Amino acid sequence: MLTYDFRDRKNETLYEYLYRKIRQDILTGQLRPQERMPSRRAFARNLGVSVVTVETAYSQLAAEGYLESRPRSGYYVEQIGRSMILPAAREPVHERNIDNTEELRDPSGLHRPESQLAVIDLSQSGIPSDMFPFPVWTKLMREVLGTRREELLTRSPGNGIGELRSAIAHFLLQYQNLRVSPEQIVIGAGTEYLYSLLIRLLGHDKVYAMETPGYRKTERIYRSSSVEVRNIPMDRNGMDIELLRQSGADVVHISPSHQFPTGITMPVTRRGELLSWCMEGNEKHRRYIIEDDYDSEFRLAGRPIPSLMSIDRSGSVIYLNTFTKSVSPAIRISYMVLPEGLLQEYREKLGFYSCTVANFEQYILAEFIRRGHFEKHINRMRNYYRQKRDRLLDALRKSRLGSCLSVRGADAGLHFLITVNAGCSEEELTQRAREKGIRIYGLTHYKALPGQEEGAVSRRPGNARDENGSGENGRGESRPCMVVNYPGLTDEQIDALPDLLLEAWTGLSGLPYL
Amino acid sequence: MLTYDFRDRKNETLYEYLYRKIRQDILTGQLRPQERMPSRRAFARNLGVSVVTVETAYSQLAAEGYLESRPRSGYYVEQIGRSMILPAAREPVHERNIDNTEELRDPSGLHRPESQLAVIDLSQSGIPSDMFPFPVWTKLMREVLGTRREELLTRSPGNGIGELRSAIAHFLLQYQNLRVSPEQIVIGAGTEYLYSLLIRLLGHDKVYAMETPGYRKTERIYRSSSVEVRNIPMDRNGMDIELLRQSGADVVHISPSHQFPTGITMPVTRRGELLSWCMEGNEKHRRYIIEDDYDSEFRLAGRPIPSLMSIDRSGSVIYLNTFTKSVSPAIRISYMVLPEGLLQEYREKLGFYSCTVANFEQYILAEFIRRGHFEKHINRMRNYYRQKRDRLLDALRKSRLGSCLSVRGADAGLHFLITVNAGCSEEELTQRAREKGIRIYGLTHYKALPGQEEGAVSRRPGNARDENGSGENGRGESRPCMVVNYPGLTDEQIDALPDLLLEAWTGLSGLPYL
Repeated sequence: MLTYDFRDRKNETLYEYLYRKIRQDILTGQLRPQERMPSRRAFARNLGVSVVTVETAYSQLAAEGYLESRPRSGYYVEQIGRSMILPAAREPVHERNIDNTEELRDPSGLHRPESQLAVIDLSQSGIPSDMFPFPVWTKLMREVLGTRREELLTRSPGNGIGELRSAIAHFLLQYQNLRVSPEQIVIGAGTEYLYSLLIRLLGHDKVYAMETPGYRKTERIYRSSSVEVRNIPMDRNGMDIELLRQSGADVVHISPSHQFPTGITMPVTRRGELLSWCMEGNEKHRRYIIEDDYDSEFRLAGRPIPSLMSIDRSGSVIYLNTFTKSVSPAIRISYMVLPEGLLQEYREKLGFYSCTVANFEQYILAEFIRRGHFEKHINRMRNYYRQKRDRLLDALRKSRLGSCLSVRGADAGLHFLITVNAGCSEEELTQRAREKGIRIYGLTHYKALPGQEEGAVSRRPGNARDENGSGENGRGESRPCMVVNYPGLTDEQIDALPDLLLEAWTGLSGLPYL
Repeated sequence: MLTYDFRDRKNETLYEYLYRKIRQDILTGQLRPQERMPSRRAFARNLGVSVVTVETAYSQLAAEGYLESRPRSGYYVEQIGRSMILPAAREPVHERNIDNTEELRDPSGLHRPESQLAVIDLSQSGIPSDMFPFPVWTKLMREVLGTRREELLTRSPGNGIGELRSAIAHFLLQYQNLRVSPEQIVIGAGTEYLYSLLIRLLGHDKVYAMETPGYRKTERIYRSSSVEVRNIPMDRNGMDIELLRQSGADVVHISPSHQFPTGITMPVTRRGELLSWCMEGNEKHRRYIIEDDYDSEFRLAGRPIPSLMSIDRSGSVIYLNTFTKSVSPAIRISYMVLPEGLLQEYREKLGFYSCTVANFEQYILAEFIRRGHFEKHINRMRNYYRQKRDRLLDALRKSRLGSCLSVRGADAGLHFLITVNAGCSEEELTQRAREKGIRIYGLTHYKALPGQEEGAVSRRPGNARDENGSGENGRGESRPCMVVNYPGLTDEQIDALPDLLLEAWTGLSGLPYL
């Protein structure tokens, strides 16, 4: 029977891949006119996909005229001469350098779960699907549908509906001790969208600084908006302010409460230095800090650290956060809080933009927050994550690998670092783990986008802060230091992980043999 | 009793305005510590707003510590020393040049319905709220919630979920005769978002051309992304290709099936010229056409015009459309179709961006289209709009104003033009109408953003196409030509309109007296 190997479908959905392969075979004559396609059920079983996938591919192909559907008989290949083929029906261009783009995607935590090799993925923090409060959400949805029909059909203000902004302002005051007015809040469909709004607000001509190692997707977004980016190295307290000063940056994008991937929580003294840097700007060259507080809700121990915005007196901090991380990836709602001094400029420059989030979702989320469901959800998730983390730390500690690892940053959020007491490179550990189906990267991996390494501001020779010489990886380490994202792991995966890592890394210098 | 004049609240919601005014009065000492606030009910009645508005403002103020809520007694002003006030609690900056921004907003159809003066708004095409198929939508919503839980919590591919892209591809083939594969489609939260993605794809260094007069919001979006914009004048067949050629543009953003506001449907010959312009680009300087097909579903008579993309053989046309216009403003889903030659570049440059629309909405819309509800909805809306238009045309024809007006472009979409046989300017007609509570603009109003007039490419003196000299307004008219957006009007408004216009315009040269 006709068959296809789904292993090279890359980012396509199962259905798209199947659709494309069949179409290709029709166009190239591999499937001949009048040929009967396999029955949906048999084909699905053979390919190991669902009947729906086959059905969707078939009906799309029928809609486009590649197959003919004959009632009570099945699908047949249509007569399509090559001369008849419209331009758009030509075999599409494919990603030739797929490995390159895959590699690029890693640092941003973008790997799809369907990735073939990785059985246990420590490179991104998946959110468990069974934790989403579906019943409450559905109830609120019905309520909003029932009571807000008029408002649902009205255009939302550009910065989002007042109810949601007000609920967020209230939440920020109670849980972050951040006192802002709803007018300062701008709702958008994801932080990536808000980053690009901010570039339009602050200027394409500005120089933007970010942390290295860091969340490389942020860098990609800035670069794709054609602005200048500087990667600023960090020491153990976070971004090096002296290097920031030398970089000529106007705006710094930073996650002081829990930096990814180093896990550093910037101490108050360094925060003060950062704010001082900001105040060195002048009227003509104002400086701004974009405080990306992406997972501050999930600090697992200790007191929450006051946000930069809450201690800033100069009106230079823009605060960003997202519900996609804290509630569910099914919700694409993020927000930023602008300092009051930027409000007029925001209204003039960007006030005409339509809000990118549907009213409907905004009303539901507003009620979700207002009635305390958000707080409950966060508490529940925090407990869940804490259990996952404790189970994983415990499993690592008890394993034969335990004595060769030291763990850091396990309290600050949803990932931690393990320094491996071994005489090998992070790349070696990554590669060996990958062979056992584990996706894990070292700090160095998050340092810069390929081809952009020269973008990093480097330390001056003899700089007192550079304690480790060329071997350091941004946390001042010369030993390999690996990043562990654990939220998406099942208990079974956690229990299996230490043995798998041991199998993967066995025999490397300094590590035990099996 | 304490009172506030809501007339100067501009773009704020009622609640925000009230919140801000009360806060201001507390901060300035107008409201004294321990003073009891009016009861919610009495205050609401007095202000002419709902109790909910007052309650929301009170509870926000209480949450922020400006008011104290005493059970069974009411709200009291808190003791707030001026020295205690945190920076963020200072009185926010307000829009000083509000009139300027209001003026700016007009051309983009962004005026909010709460605008005080306009009783009948012909400047934007509101969508009647009772036409949205709530029951079907709710049913699909429940279904998706019941059957797609796993998928809802999975990150959508950057270009949108396969099911929706496939449903759109199917729809485009059936109703626009546009054969594209789902891979070419990119879903985004609104066309404005997609415009800015396109700038990142095609390049910030490119020169973008658009039609003048035109939908000025598009120009603002391009300008706010810091790219060069050229406004290209039109003749009666649409954009002047010779002027486009002279402008040095690389990319042209255009609505050939129904240009706003002229209503011009670009004939096939001009489309051919436009595609030829595109093919004059070379490998290094590729040219592209962004075909913004914003209301093609609502062509009210005649055969649909094939889209530029469907007749393009050079792979230079990017097609854009939105469900916000065709289904409901409650839905923020738009899409673009990339030519296959751009797919690889899209994946490399922008493939890492997350999709800005929540999965949930995408699944619902996919089912809405797949099961034929979208088609039914469009047909229903088309009939509805046709009735509105016929009623309005009939009312105008029968009125005493009828003999002084000539109507054009009434078949192509959701607005038409009336040329007024009068010896006065469009501004005069706008101003006089405004005094009677009617918001209506002439073609000239849509020519360029204030301060950007010099951006328009002007015709060479002696250009044979320039038939009307300096008085023309982009449609080759010297008489005032007004733009009428009718979809949001009630029957009562339609019936009242001719008499109101007559009252407004009475006595102007060439027009009848009351």
